[in-house]
Amino acid sequence: MNNYKLTIQYDGGRYKGWQRLGNTENTIQGKIEKVLTEMAGEEIEIIGSGRTDAGAHALAQIANFKMRKRMTEEEVMKYLNRYLPQDISVVAVTLVQDRFHARYNAKDKTYSYKIWNKPFPNPFMRKYSMHVEDKLDQKKMKEAAKHFLGEHDFTSYSNAKAKKKSMVREIYSLDIKEKEGFIEIKIRGNGFLYNMVRKVVGTLIEVGLGEIEAAAIPSILESKERIQTGRMAEAEGLYLEKVGF
Amino acid sequence: MNNYKLTIQYDGGRYKGWQRLGNTENTIQGKIEKVLTEMAGEEIEIIGSGRTDAGAHALAQIANFKMRKRMTEEEVMKYLNRYLPQDISVVAVTLVQDRFHARYNAKDKTYSYKIWNKPFPNPFMRKYSMHVEDKLDQKKMKEAAKHFLGEHDFTSYSNAKAKKKSMVREIYSLDIKEKEGFIEIKIRGNGFLYNMVRKVVGTLIEVGLGEIEAAAIPSILESKERIQTGRMAEAEGLYLEKVGF
Repeated sequence: MNNYKLTIQYDGGRYKGWQRLGNTENTIQGKIEKVLTEMAGEEIEIIGSGRTDAGAHALAQIANFKMRKRMTEEEVMKYLNRYLPQDISVVAVTLVQDRFHARYNAKDKTYSYKIWNKPFPNPFMRKYSMHVEDKLDQKKMKEAAKHFLGEHDFTSYSNAKAKKKSMVREIYSLDIKEKEGFIEIKIRGNGFLYNMVRKVVGTLIEVGLGEIEAAAIPSILESKERIQTGRMAEAEGLYLEKVGF
Repeated sequence: MNNYKLTIQYDGGRYKGWQRLGNTENTIQGKIEKVLTEMAGEEIEIIGSGRTDAGAHALAQIANFKMRKRMTEEEVMKYLNRYLPQDISVVAVTLVQDRFHARYNAKDKTYSYKIWNKPFPNPFMRKYSMHVEDKLDQKKMKEAAKHFLGEHDFTSYSNAKAKKKSMVREIYSLDIKEKEGFIEIKIRGNGFLYNMVRKVVGTLIEVGLGEIEAAAIPSILESKERIQTGRMAEAEGLYLEKVGF
């Protein structure tokens, strides 16, 4: 079997997220598997490093798949980009060792979130960022960000229904930067729960708007109650930026 | 009468260009006039510095309109951004002297054109750039660009039907730069004929792909035959970037 590692970019706007659910074709995974199965001449399953939410984007999602047929990296890349829709792009293909597994081997992930913080909309980025009209207080947001660093039980910041698995995750860094009218939030951690990044960003926005105090975050985390968290930032502003192995 | 100058950004993707044609509502001008007329309580006509093609974008289109009602610049900006669709944004409003006229006073215009020159598509910029898969020879393109500088009769580079008006335009600069995978072409001149920028870019692409020689351009210009020019670059990559007064 040949094991191929893919680096994939996508505009998630019209998809129900990465993960194929049964026969749902309207997912990134479903779209790619369909093309791969035709290419390979056998049923192909692709393993992503993790799911992304419906509507969220990826700058470098990592995935792998195995097939009997031997093709060069260039051939696989060309085939995929030829038959995939224009909003999914394969930017790199590498033949890797048989044991490489995009999910099990992923050590950390970096997500970024783009906020357009101007009183007028940005016509070109309206599907690729969240528009917050009122001025955000970045100093307060940076203060708030510190409370998320380190290891925490993120139950309050999840929407997961399963209560069995551990909700503990470690956040390595959470940076907030201004760049040409955008506020970019970058978060790196060993893993993220379902909706977690969007809920964390939602809290940072609430702090930036003066709706809640940064100092309230530790008690929200400690409560382990999902009801304690407020708004969830829109999926359009969210990008899976990097997967570390 | 109060004369207001507007700086407007738009994603032209779903419009039939700037200029309203009769009752056509599906134009940028039509959309803005509809909102202005409601705001002013009288029929408003807006004057743009020039038309943009169907599907083409603007980073800073300049326009002006006059109304009896007196409103502050902030009020006009807020009203427009509240009622205009998200793909049209008013980024500045200034009360100007009565004699200011966005078309007659425009001295020069700068257009930019974005080409994504990679073998794989760019999912986020697919509607905001033209994808050319084969590697473009930028050195040859720069060589070709020189032939357009200065004053020329651009009949060959127009699609205009009217033969009466002068087809002579002066190009002040035509620069080609690479930037994060994009080739950006910037062209500044005292005016541009219908489809002219896209036809000039089309020729530059043909030169970059080795389909024609840069040295062929002077004779294409001299022929004054529209049939002599080859491909026209897609509207998606075109931006009205700046209007000089």
